[in-house]
Amino acid sequence: MKIGFIGTGVMGHAIVGHLQKAGHELHVYNRTKAKTADLVAEGATWHDTPAQVAAASEIIFTMVGYPSDVEEVYYGPVGIFQSEISGKVLVDLTTSTPSLAEKIAKTASEKGASSLDAPVSGGDLGAKNATLTIMVGGDDATFNRVLPLFEIMGKSYALHGGPGKGQHTKMANQIMIAGTMTGMTEMLVYSRAAGLNQPKVIETLAGGSASNWSMENYGPRILKEDYSPGFFVKHFIKDLKIALDEAAKVGLDLPATTLAKDLYEKLADKGFQDDGTQALIKLWWS
Amino acid sequence: MKIGFIGTGVMGHAIVGHLQKAGHELHVYNRTKAKTADLVAEGATWHDTPAQVAAASEIIFTMVGYPSDVEEVYYGPVGIFQSEISGKVLVDLTTSTPSLAEKIAKTASEKGASSLDAPVSGGDLGAKNATLTIMVGGDDATFNRVLPLFEIMGKSYALHGGPGKGQHTKMANQIMIAGTMTGMTEMLVYSRAAGLNQPKVIETLAGGSASNWSMENYGPRILKEDYSPGFFVKHFIKDLKIALDEAAKVGLDLPATTLAKDLYEKLADKGFQDDGTQALIKLWWS
Repeated sequence: MKIGFIGTGVMGHAIVGHLQKAGHELHVYNRTKAKTADLVAEGATWHDTPAQVAAASEIIFTMVGYPSDVEEVYYGPVGIFQSEISGKVLVDLTTSTPSLAEKIAKTASEKGASSLDAPVSGGDLGAKNATLTIMVGGDDATFNRVLPLFEIMGKSYALHGGPGKGQHTKMANQIMIAGTMTGMTEMLVYSRAAGLNQPKVIETLAGGSASNWSMENYGPRILKEDYSPGFFVKHFIKDLKIALDEAAKVGLDLPATTLAKDLYEKLADKGFQDDGTQALIKLWWS
Repeated sequence: MKIGFIGTGVMGHAIVGHLQKAGHELHVYNRTKAKTADLVAEGATWHDTPAQVAAASEIIFTMVGYPSDVEEVYYGPVGIFQSEISGKVLVDLTTSTPSLAEKIAKTASEKGASSLDAPVSGGDLGAKNATLTIMVGGDDATFNRVLPLFEIMGKSYALHGGPGKGQHTKMANQIMIAGTMTGMTEMLVYSRAAGLNQPKVIETLAGGSASNWSMENYGPRILKEDYSPGFFVKHFIKDLKIALDEAAKVGLDLPATTLAKDLYEKLADKGFQDDGTQALIKLWWS
């Protein structure tokens, strides 16, 4: 199948690799062209604009940084919607706003195309190992059409409702993680101050009702002072802002999520925005 | 072995049952005598005071509510330390303060006895199914002496250091859970407001980096409006206060844990102190 892929950052790059290995014909665009060099060497076709990628492909994936980038690659002067896309499918893998996903769905529909919002979780490692969780919004027919490709890139994929519901599910995911990350961080801060053997504490807690993925995966990395990004601080702040904006729209106060956002902003202000989210502990330990 | 057990609430009662089934001779005391009736019917001996339980037993467990109750059963006018306890072992299963654990260890040592602080996690169900996690502070020899009994009541037990370190480890556990509970609660509040299929969201999140015990166990109960206590709101507040007091002693600010404590206090103020901790969502949904 002719597949377009716009945005070959760390995760996008890994996903394109999986799609190539599965025998698909790839058409790629990225803001930094150099990052597509090895994909092109493996047979992908470079295009100078998102519009050209869309023109050459049947299913077009986008995976960029911020909602403003999504807006640009879809609605910009050389964006996807500048091409004839009737009958095609647009799939945004970026974590972006539910309202933008709804807007893209409406525009796509007006142009005879269909779309899915399909943000992922699992980070770099999930992309590399094809173990991503993919949270999808859209209609059944479009979901089923893209499903064979989701199966190549992830291990869990579900349709959570109409346009925007994939993004809402991802927001729920990030709100949950805000809790595990702040809790884990304060747990480690406390347990070090109490003079405990921290690897042993993590092992004990992992066996009971405190167990969670963040602690079991990031805990040991923090104890090795490994703050390399699986998931960037700056992107987590973006996600939490979207979640809190959405909550505010319906009059919801989410104090723990707000606190997490504030703490991560404080961390970014100290210059750690390009660290992984486990770097939150630097607010205490640096 | 002659085992004393002071405090046969829901968890203590279940643990005594396991010890009886394993063939031990039980000596019991509880503030409300009626709660020991069936244990006595199964062969346990009732005593009118903690001191008498201690006199009749080789290893004495205590499992009461608050640090003030622990103080009372050890140091009160009819408390354990009123008895001759040389050569005996005192094991406090209550979640209490590290400093009280240290004080008990000192007094026990002065009287020729030894002690362990051994708070548990796993709740009512963990006690009933003998799957508790037991976090122990004390010395190796005493730990090894009590180990065969820990094996009867739990599935995970580790010595985390000297007197008080069991309590510190439990505090680390509760700080972690404060994160998973607040995160899960806000996740569910958000996902309902976003019109998502909540069981499906929980299922999806459980498969990825947001996965955690609280969500997977309490999430479905909340969706069934089951707020019955596995673990009481009032006891969680007690634990978080101890954790924050300990943190304050060493100059640590733990904002997420503080927020969790504040939210749970607000919940208790609304009259929900005897609900299970999953009732936190009532701040939004009731």
